[in-house]
Amino acid sequence: MRIDHIGIACHDLEEKIALFERTFELTVVAREVNEEQGVKEAMLHIADGEGGGSYIQLLEPLSADSPVGKFLARRGEGVHHVAFGVPDVSQAMEQIGAKGVRLLDERPRHGSMGSSIAFLHPKDVGGMLTELVQAAEGR
Amino acid sequence: MRIDHIGIACHDLEEKIALFERTFELTVVAREVNEEQGVKEAMLHIADGEGGGSYIQLLEPLSADSPVGKFLARRGEGVHHVAFGVPDVSQAMEQIGAKGVRLLDERPRHGSMGSSIAFLHPKDVGGMLTELVQAAEGR
Repeated sequence: MRIDHIGIACHDLEEKIALFERTFELTVVAREVNEEQGVKEAMLHIADGEGGGSYIQLLEPLSADSPVGKFLARRGEGVHHVAFGVPDVSQAMEQIGAKGVRLLDERPRHGSMGSSIAFLHPKDVGGMLTELVQAAEGR
Repeated sequence: MRIDHIGIACHDLEEKIALFERTFELTVVAREVNEEQGVKEAMLHIADGEGGGSYIQLLEPLSADSPVGKFLARRGEGVHHVAFGVPDVSQAMEQIGAKGVRLLDERPRHGSMGSSIAFLHPKDVGGMLTELVQAAEGR
């Protein structure tokens, strides 16, 4: 339905928030710590769309051995993943899984701003770590 | 105004078009060869937005020594750049350049589907090669 967000890995969340606010005149609409994923993050709103908005998501790892921490050590700062908005994440997982794409999650988990999310294996979608996002009701 | 597109570098354009069409039920709306940038490409439509649409852009290099060819050799397949839609690319270049972000283009050049585009230096925007896009009138 939409490009929900682009997740960008960074070393210093506050510095990058300031950079993106200044450069692109975006505004932070949510900040969260996601212990399960080992990140603290901020969502900067770009536009509204069908079923939810479009955002830049800035991600700072909580530790060096988290997935985003390892990504930074290996690749440096930059695009970590891309997220597509779907109407129903469970249904999308089923449909996409049936096409032979490996899912990194067996069931939906908690994403930013109350969303339900699941990740797809990057090797099965063109080398891009891909997230499916069902936005929370009313977002 | 919007996330215009995510540019994904790949070795085999036709194979990746088939993968994205099958996996995400997207449709190719434009194919082009851009000799200046050394790529052949396809745009897969995701959604419409303010001032233009949102797309996945698949990029296959025309030669190994083109920018996308070198990217593939260094990093493999995956996200090559991210593009933001702006109302006026010349004005956006001026405003963003005035904030100390280096521009890779001195003036707008031709992008996909008749758009006018310019690139920003990835080091100045969080490690992400960033494109500004002014969509062609009526797209």
